[in-house]
Amino acid sequence: MASGWFYLSCLALGSLGSMCVLFTTYWMQYWRGGFAWNGSIHMFNWHPVLMVAGMVVLYGAASLVYRLPQSWVGPKLPWKFLHAALHLMAFILTVVGLVAVFNFHNSQKIANLYSLHSWLGITTVFLFASQWFLGFTVFLLPWASLWLRSLLKPIHVFFGASILSLSLASVISGINEKLFFSLKNATKPYSSLPSEAVFANITGMLVVAFGLLVLYILLASSWKRPEPGVLTDRQPLLHNGE
Amino acid sequence: MASGWFYLSCLALGSLGSMCVLFTTYWMQYWRGGFAWNGSIHMFNWHPVLMVAGMVVLYGAASLVYRLPQSWVGPKLPWKFLHAALHLMAFILTVVGLVAVFNFHNSQKIANLYSLHSWLGITTVFLFASQWFLGFTVFLLPWASLWLRSLLKPIHVFFGASILSLSLASVISGINEKLFFSLKNATKPYSSLPSEAVFANITGMLVVAFGLLVLYILLASSWKRPEPGVLTDRQPLLHNGE
Repeated sequence: MASGWFYLSCLALGSLGSMCVLFTTYWMQYWRGGFAWNGSIHMFNWHPVLMVAGMVVLYGAASLVYRLPQSWVGPKLPWKFLHAALHLMAFILTVVGLVAVFNFHNSQKIANLYSLHSWLGITTVFLFASQWFLGFTVFLLPWASLWLRSLLKPIHVFFGASILSLSLASVISGINEKLFFSLKNATKPYSSLPSEAVFANITGMLVVAFGLLVLYILLASSWKRPEPGVLTDRQPLLHNGE
Repeated sequence: MASGWFYLSCLALGSLGSMCVLFTTYWMQYWRGGFAWNGSIHMFNWHPVLMVAGMVVLYGAASLVYRLPQSWVGPKLPWKFLHAALHLMAFILTVVGLVAVFNFHNSQKIANLYSLHSWLGITTVFLFASQWFLGFTVFLLPWASLWLRSLLKPIHVFFGASILSLSLASVISGINEKLFFSLKNATKPYSSLPSEAVFANITGMLVVAFGLLVLYILLASSWKRPEPGVLTDRQPLLHNGE
């Protein structure tokens, strides 16, 4: 199982994930005037923090629930609840992050959903919502047949990883766009790489590193939960083949 | 093998890939004044076309060589050559695409490598170069042991898919950035979604759709080349366990 490497990866993941959220928060607090919930630019500042925290860090952590060796034995249902609950929390953070940017735009009479960043971002959130709803309906509620579950599982797994990839592209284009907006008329433009630009660029690269590490842990075959039957002697409480 | 679905996916892939390159070319030709190789903004116009053609479309096609059922029987070496040669062509397009933007920047006294788009893009190209060199040295040249090849193969496969994901993020942030540059002072700004903006946003979404389809075909387990031994009765010319 090479569980030493697994926990080392988890440690790296926790550190990287915390840094992503802390760096984005610090960027907004130190260089962009901090946070408010009043339709001003300080309301917008919640948007990057909540999207990084929700669509990347918490989403990534929630995806990895079944990679924990503890989840391999015993009933799967509690782990499914944890997987769904963490993703629901990630989705709530995401929605609040969207409310922040829409309210800011509407208050300031700025158009919504025109940039490619926003088109990709809103598509990603729509896919996330569909994925959660489908996952809840088919894998958590008890009505779906084993046949339907095995049919949809590879699709669920593929879209799980794809949504994270799309989140990364959305976050990178968003940070890039924000820096061009914020640093275009100052004495130190983005192209002169002032400290804010270096800090925010590094934040973007940390988000990419976090996302890649999640995808690596997700895809590494030796860390996957064994399929039912492989560990049956250690799984006395399996229900419905789960 | 469900090869009907596989070839249908390849047809969709070919159509999407052609559309990505054609749409990017049309955007640069119709709205951005066309192409030149003289250090002007028309030289820059090669950059998006060559990066989409090289880092996404040809890279994606090259990744899928071993998914062709024809590659499953007989010796693997010719398919390895094809895989390496197509990736080398993709890399050459990429390098020419980089030359286009660096020459344009240097001629116009614009700083290089300051935006997050450029940081991520150059990192992706560096990873691509390392991946090609490592793949050539370990998997194509005959010196590496089977042990080393099996150790490095999952890493090669993971980085292959990761580099494509990073290319998508680079392309999305690049198209987004280019639209903010080009449409900021016109009577119809980006935020009013003029026809160029809609067209380029759609191009970006097509690139994402192409990339996701490549990743789906790559990851779908039933389309993977069977490991040595599974098809031995149909593989009379295997060398070195390949």
